[in-house]
Amino acid sequence: MLSEAEIVRRFFTRPDSSVVLGVGDDSALIRPVTGMELAVSTDMLVCGQHFFPDTDSRKLGYKALAVNLSDMAAMGAKPRWVTLALALPEPLVRTNEKWIEAFADGFFGLARVHQVALIGGDITCGPLTICVQIIGEVAKGKALHRSGAKPGDDIWMSGRLGDAALALSHEKQHIMLEPSEIAACLPALHAPIARVELGQRLIGLAHSAIDISDGLLADLGHILECSKVAAVIKMNEINCSMVLEKYLPQSPAINCLLAGGDDYELCFTARKAKRGKIEALSHEMDISLTRIGRIDAGEGLVVLDATDNAISLGTTGYDHFHSP
Amino acid sequence: MLSEAEIVRRFFTRPDSSVVLGVGDDSALIRPVTGMELAVSTDMLVCGQHFFPDTDSRKLGYKALAVNLSDMAAMGAKPRWVTLALALPEPLVRTNEKWIEAFADGFFGLARVHQVALIGGDITCGPLTICVQIIGEVAKGKALHRSGAKPGDDIWMSGRLGDAALALSHEKQHIMLEPSEIAACLPALHAPIARVELGQRLIGLAHSAIDISDGLLADLGHILECSKVAAVIKMNEINCSMVLEKYLPQSPAINCLLAGGDDYELCFTARKAKRGKIEALSHEMDISLTRIGRIDAGEGLVVLDATDNAISLGTTGYDHFHSP
Repeated sequence: MLSEAEIVRRFFTRPDSSVVLGVGDDSALIRPVTGMELAVSTDMLVCGQHFFPDTDSRKLGYKALAVNLSDMAAMGAKPRWVTLALALPEPLVRTNEKWIEAFADGFFGLARVHQVALIGGDITCGPLTICVQIIGEVAKGKALHRSGAKPGDDIWMSGRLGDAALALSHEKQHIMLEPSEIAACLPALHAPIARVELGQRLIGLAHSAIDISDGLLADLGHILECSKVAAVIKMNEINCSMVLEKYLPQSPAINCLLAGGDDYELCFTARKAKRGKIEALSHEMDISLTRIGRIDAGEGLVVLDATDNAISLGTTGYDHFHSP
Repeated sequence: MLSEAEIVRRFFTRPDSSVVLGVGDDSALIRPVTGMELAVSTDMLVCGQHFFPDTDSRKLGYKALAVNLSDMAAMGAKPRWVTLALALPEPLVRTNEKWIEAFADGFFGLARVHQVALIGGDITCGPLTICVQIIGEVAKGKALHRSGAKPGDDIWMSGRLGDAALALSHEKQHIMLEPSEIAACLPALHAPIARVELGQRLIGLAHSAIDISDGLLADLGHILECSKVAAVIKMNEINCSMVLEKYLPQSPAINCLLAGGDDYELCFTARKAKRGKIEALSHEMDISLTRIGRIDAGEGLVVLDATDNAISLGTTGYDHFHSP
C-alpha cells in the first residue's frame, strides 16, 4: 500500500516557478508581490455532506479547487497558491490508486487554467474529507467586500442560477428530469465555473460582491446584513436555464433558483452610473450579467413575482446543520 | 441547534488588529510586511486517527494549533495568521455547545500566546475533523530548510523525546505506567510546546531543521534524504524524561524514543563552530539543546548504543497508512 510520502510524491508534487519552496518541507515558502494584500480562504468538503460517496474523483478534485477559486473571485483577488489537506479512507488507498490519480488530475487541470500552484498539504487516514486553503493577491484597499452595498445600487448576478441544485434534486429523486435535462444541468453541479477573471474585472465597478454558494437569498442576505441595507429583487429577472424555467412554476424549482446554492456565480452591487460599463464587460467577457434588483435603505429582502407581488420566503439558503 | 453562522459568531470571531479583514467575508485580507517571505503549512487532525473521541476539546483546540505552530518553528518563521476548518458531527452541535466553546478557548489561548490571528475558516457537518492552515513570515532567503545539512554538522535536538508516545502507549494499554508517571508524561501528548521562538533564533545558526512529529528516525531521515547526506546518532545522548529512561531497556520504550512521534521538538544541524552559540542560546532560553550525533557524507542513518554498536532499526516512524 502507498505511504503518505509516496502519495504526495506520485500524485501531488508538480514544481511551479511561482514558489520559492514547494511541497516537501515543513512548510512552503512564497514571495507575494510587494504592496499587494493577500486574500485567504478555506473550504472543507465532506463525503456524504457535500458530495456522494460514488462521485467521480476527477470531478471532486476539480470542484474542491473551484469552490475556493470562487471565494477569490468574490474578493476580486487573483488566486496564486493553494494547500490541500486530504483524509482518505484506508481501503481507498489500499485498493484504488486510480481514485487518487484522477482526483489529482481534476485538481491540477483546473489549477493550470488559473495558474495556481499547489504548495503544500497533508494526507492522512480518515473519513473522506477534502480541505483546500487558497491565497490570492489583490491591490491594497481594492478588494470587493460584502459590506460595500449602497442604497440605490443595482443588484447584479453573473451566469445562471439553480441548475446545480436542480441536478442535485434529481439525484436525490426529489424531482425527475428527462435524460437530456439532467445532462444539461449536471455540469453546473460537478464542474462549476469560478468567476475568477470577472471578479478581478469588477474592481472599480462594483460596490460589493459575494459568490453564491449557499443560494441567492442567503448570500445576497449576507451583503444586506454586512452593508446594513435592504433589497428588492424580481424573480422573473433572475437568469436561469431553459430546463429550470420549464419546472419553475413548481415550488422545488423556485427553491433551486432562490435558495439552492452550489452556483458559484457572483452576486454584486454597483451604482446605476456603471450600467454601461458592466454591460460592456458582459459583452467583452461573454458572460451574462443580469440586473435583478436594487439596494434600498433599511433592512430586509423582498422578492417580487411577475405581477410585482412579494413572494413569501420559506427557505433562506443552505446551512450544514439544518438540512432542508 | 446552532447554525454555522452562529457557531462562527459566538465562538470563533475575535477581532485582531493585525488583520485588514477578518472572519465574515468570502476571504480574509492580510497585509504581509514588505520584503518578507511567507511560510505556509497545513495539518489535518482526524478523530480516531490523531486523537481519541473523548479527548478534552480544550486540549484538542490547543493541539490543533500547536502542531501547526511547530511547522513554523521548523522553518524559523514567525507565525502570524491561521484559518480553521472544522467538521463537527451533528449530535455534537445539537447537544454539546460547551465542547465547541472549550475547543475555541484552547485554540485562542495558545493563539494569544503567539500573537497569531484566526482570520477565517469553514464549519461543516461531518465526522470530527480539524484542519488548520498557518501562514508565517520569515526574512527573504533566511528560512531553515530540511535540505541544508552538511557533512561535519552536529545534529541537535531540543527538549526531550518520547513522553508523548509513552503516554499514548499507556492509553492504548501497550505499556502500564504508574499514576505519577502517566501524570508526568500526559502533558507532552496533550499540550506539546511548539518551539516557535527557538526556530526563529536558529536562523543563522542552523544549516537545516525539522520538527519531530513522526519520530526522530523518520524526521531526521527527511533531513538526510533532502540534504543527500548520512548520519550517526548515539541513543544514549538523546534527551528523555526520567520516566522514559526507567522503561528504556524495554523495546516499546526505545520505540517511543526513536520513532514515537508527536514530540514537536526541533531536530537541527549546525557547524561545530556554532556549538558555543547554541549552548549559550540553550542557556538564555532555558531550553535544553542536546548534541546527539553528526552528519556524514554518503547516505543512511546509524544509531549507536552505549557500547557504540549499531542498533538494528525496526521502525522508522509514523505513517498514517501503516500503523504500528
